[in-house]
Amino acid sequence: MGKLPDFVQIKEVGPRDGLQNEKKWVPTEAKIAWINMLSNTGVKEIEFSSFVHPKMIPALSDAYEVGKRIKRNRDVTYSALVPNRKGLEFSLEAGIDGASVFMSVSETHNGKNINKSIHDTYPVLKEVIQEAKQAGKHVTGYVSTVFDCPHEGKIMPEAVIPVCDQLLEFGVDDLSLGDTLGSAVPIQVEKLLDQILKRYPQEKIIMHFHDTRGMAIANILTAMKYGISRFDSSIGGLGGCPYAPGAAGNVATNDVLYLLHGLGIETGVNEKKIQEASLYIQDILGKTLPSRSLLASGE
Amino acid sequence: MGKLPDFVQIKEVGPRDGLQNEKKWVPTEAKIAWINMLSNTGVKEIEFSSFVHPKMIPALSDAYEVGKRIKRNRDVTYSALVPNRKGLEFSLEAGIDGASVFMSVSETHNGKNINKSIHDTYPVLKEVIQEAKQAGKHVTGYVSTVFDCPHEGKIMPEAVIPVCDQLLEFGVDDLSLGDTLGSAVPIQVEKLLDQILKRYPQEKIIMHFHDTRGMAIANILTAMKYGISRFDSSIGGLGGCPYAPGAAGNVATNDVLYLLHGLGIETGVNEKKIQEASLYIQDILGKTLPSRSLLASGE
Repeated sequence: MGKLPDFVQIKEVGPRDGLQNEKKWVPTEAKIAWINMLSNTGVKEIEFSSFVHPKMIPALSDAYEVGKRIKRNRDVTYSALVPNRKGLEFSLEAGIDGASVFMSVSETHNGKNINKSIHDTYPVLKEVIQEAKQAGKHVTGYVSTVFDCPHEGKIMPEAVIPVCDQLLEFGVDDLSLGDTLGSAVPIQVEKLLDQILKRYPQEKIIMHFHDTRGMAIANILTAMKYGISRFDSSIGGLGGCPYAPGAAGNVATNDVLYLLHGLGIETGVNEKKIQEASLYIQDILGKTLPSRSLLASGE
Repeated sequence: MGKLPDFVQIKEVGPRDGLQNEKKWVPTEAKIAWINMLSNTGVKEIEFSSFVHPKMIPALSDAYEVGKRIKRNRDVTYSALVPNRKGLEFSLEAGIDGASVFMSVSETHNGKNINKSIHDTYPVLKEVIQEAKQAGKHVTGYVSTVFDCPHEGKIMPEAVIPVCDQLLEFGVDDLSLGDTLGSAVPIQVEKLLDQILKRYPQEKIIMHFHDTRGMAIANILTAMKYGISRFDSSIGGLGGCPYAPGAAGNVATNDVLYLLHGLGIETGVNEKKIQEASLYIQDILGKTLPSRSLLASGE
């Protein structure tokens, strides 16, 4: 396969990115039980919720209680999306290990997603990043719509760089580059990483793919050939973006593990336990999750 | 992307491999209308049915009538699966341009699929291949379970070679190597093609992937890096193998086109027309087809 990483670290984003657009309310008790299951799958990081205003994402309005009540596994980093200072305050009280901030490369997407221009978002993020770092937390910068935007079309790698530069300057520990629309094909991944890896060490880069058009696994394979060894994924393939029409489904943790383990790459994650946790949330949501591997298991 | 083909030829197998396991009967008129739509999408080859005994595959029991009544586009090769001499006779009367024969590398899979040992299947195929060639038809040899078998586990490339040798010796024009179980990961594709391409020119090799575990697009990308430029796919992702539990879904033509066109590879196939033909059969079957790109289109 050429040079591939020996070990890949998966960040499970199902409880946050996966659930945020679900119309069906997942009871707090069920979220806690589910996250506790995820804590025992071997994943090293779980993004467990989002500390945005409850009106913005009603599905995650219980972030504080979830954070307070999940049973912590000391081998797992529990992170959450934090949009502003108030959210950070709550999230710190709730006991986060890591904070994620969010910025879209696309002005229109950013505006629709957080009701602010990119310019006006920076000071808010700067404050959150610096206070989170002062509190000793790991901070990840999500950079979204790095390939395509539903409103602005193709995004050039040159447009991604300034956002990455700014977030790193503010102090984020790493960057998660998101194919928010789930529209990228491998050549776009190559073109972006050609630029990105000239500028930043690969350890700082996480790739965040959606499987909207079935390209995510090929994109992950492509990114690994560039030495990228950290990926976000969502159990069962839960998730999407409400402002990117049709963009349903983070790449499924199940499918990513099928690829990685098939290639002999270690992850430390137990596929059977991931499947159990997938079936648990699938039952609660009352709908079939899109992961192909999960479907193939016949359950 | 490294060296990729400039042009890839898609063989649309939806009307055969896609429909063969559908429980819902697709009326002959609808099949004809649908294949006529497919004939105008730009695909160069359509496998329109299977001339097996109607009791074996009831869904395709109207192969003869379909073959007789579809409107031929002179730019399209119309082929069909032909299991034996009697099937060949009917298929020639129905006006096939090409015949496909089938052999599994796995003894158990072959037995379950066609009720014969590999040894006993060869003389039947030899007869069909030679008579089809005498009739001036193109003949493709499907070699299935080239990576994994639901009954026998991993299949080594060394086991695939003798089957390919034998079919080529009988006179097939090309070989379609099938990931029947939809279980292969890219490293398996590389290992197989490393062996295959030492022995046969790449023009003789077609890859036939199922997307059962979401790996098909990554596998196609991998095969293209070996110079493979012919792939079977099924519109909307219809299809599967009845004897490989859970193995639902040929790779979707829609998703393959999304990949290829995104990579700048020409196919001559119109994505919009493929989508229309997908929606047509989706309506008739009354169920959502698995193609991610089709789902993303919101229809």
